[in-house]
Amino acid sequence: MAFRNPFEPRQVTSRRGGPVKQPLSLEAIVGAALDLLTREGLKEMSLRKVAAALDTGAASLYVYVEDLQELRSLVFDRALAAVDTKTDPKQHWRGKLRGLLESYLSALTRSPGIAQIALSTIAAGPNGLRFFEALLGVLEEAGVDQPTAAWACDLIPLYITAIAAEQANRDADPHPPGALQRMVESLSQAEYPRVYAARNDLVSGDPEDRFKWALEVLLKGILETPRTAGPGPRRSPSRSR
Amino acid sequence: MAFRNPFEPRQVTSRRGGPVKQPLSLEAIVGAALDLLTREGLKEMSLRKVAAALDTGAASLYVYVEDLQELRSLVFDRALAAVDTKTDPKQHWRGKLRGLLESYLSALTRSPGIAQIALSTIAAGPNGLRFFEALLGVLEEAGVDQPTAAWACDLIPLYITAIAAEQANRDADPHPPGALQRMVESLSQAEYPRVYAARNDLVSGDPEDRFKWALEVLLKGILETPRTAGPGPRRSPSRSR
Repeated sequence: MAFRNPFEPRQVTSRRGGPVKQPLSLEAIVGAALDLLTREGLKEMSLRKVAAALDTGAASLYVYVEDLQELRSLVFDRALAAVDTKTDPKQHWRGKLRGLLESYLSALTRSPGIAQIALSTIAAGPNGLRFFEALLGVLEEAGVDQPTAAWACDLIPLYITAIAAEQANRDADPHPPGALQRMVESLSQAEYPRVYAARNDLVSGDPEDRFKWALEVLLKGILETPRTAGPGPRRSPSRSR
Repeated sequence: MAFRNPFEPRQVTSRRGGPVKQPLSLEAIVGAALDLLTREGLKEMSLRKVAAALDTGAASLYVYVEDLQELRSLVFDRALAAVDTKTDPKQHWRGKLRGLLESYLSALTRSPGIAQIALSTIAAGPNGLRFFEALLGVLEEAGVDQPTAAWACDLIPLYITAIAAEQANRDADPHPPGALQRMVESLSQAEYPRVYAARNDLVSGDPEDRFKWALEVLLKGILETPRTAGPGPRRSPSRSR
């Protein structure tokens, strides 16, 4: 079978349309799927249910979408349309990077199922590529060499996806209020002396502070762990070991 | 309602037992749940199904387990029993850290549902605490101050969980062979010049190499991003800004 890019428009002429029903289109299918995902979660985003929402049969969907995996890629890319990749050229790359990644996190947390899809999909649609293009641009500005920046394009989004997935799970199934605090209070100092000593720091800070700190960690770590020995503004001495 | 630690044994005397059925116990319940998780996935790990596997009714389970969320915590902690926290005192902390985290990743990938549970559960059972105790120990040896090490106990396991979740999803629903390569080949150089230029680096390396590199990134980043200005072996100059 020849490779088909699911993000490229298919030559399809809908045989439907008319005064009542919307004509079927890839646009309408992805929109209905994203709706379902937002309202009912990833499990419920089936081709059958999407077809029902569009008042048609699953068979008509296959004209536009290969299978559920392809539909997920398309929905994921639609969600990534919300990522703001425009940056102020006068801004320092550090601020650009933070803005870009906060926008990416916000797109992933807009609907709980998005982060789950992100953990199983390659972001290779136009919005995914637009995001990677911007991320590579900022990393280049920061002086990260290309092989390192390329791997950072895996590491950074994966970490952000994990935060979004954790947040989605927590929203869907919240811990009882104060559960963490009570666990901390019931800790055995004798058995876990270090955990006990760090107990307040372990639960300190709000998610925003932790996210900012984690981005700093990732960024400094990436700058200090070049994959090539090529010229870079901040080569680490430990590289030569 | 008073706080009850789910990891502490309850005073329960099973009224069952006998020559055919195993007596019901928390041990047996968690074991059956982990079995179900491994065979059928997280969605199927319901109290009803666990009860059926133990040839009893869901109501008898509530004597031992509060609800599904508690069962998940217990199953997660059982899975973490596989984490090897014993380290060779003569080994450098870098090797200890890598060994500990590789063992954690391996525990999380043993069954596909484990990583999903990890994204929605606080690892506060005895095996979770044993892991955090070991992680704090190695980070202390590395010279990381306590407030920083405490937040690293969130960042590092979350990243590892994301890798495990991604791997589980990929195993459950693999991309068609060569899909990534074909996407790379169909990239538009004009639209995404940086992605195009980095296209080979974006897909290079096996998961082990990427994991090793990512751990180095996290470690160096953590060492360079202390949360306190207290004495540490590698305070970063950028801290003072």
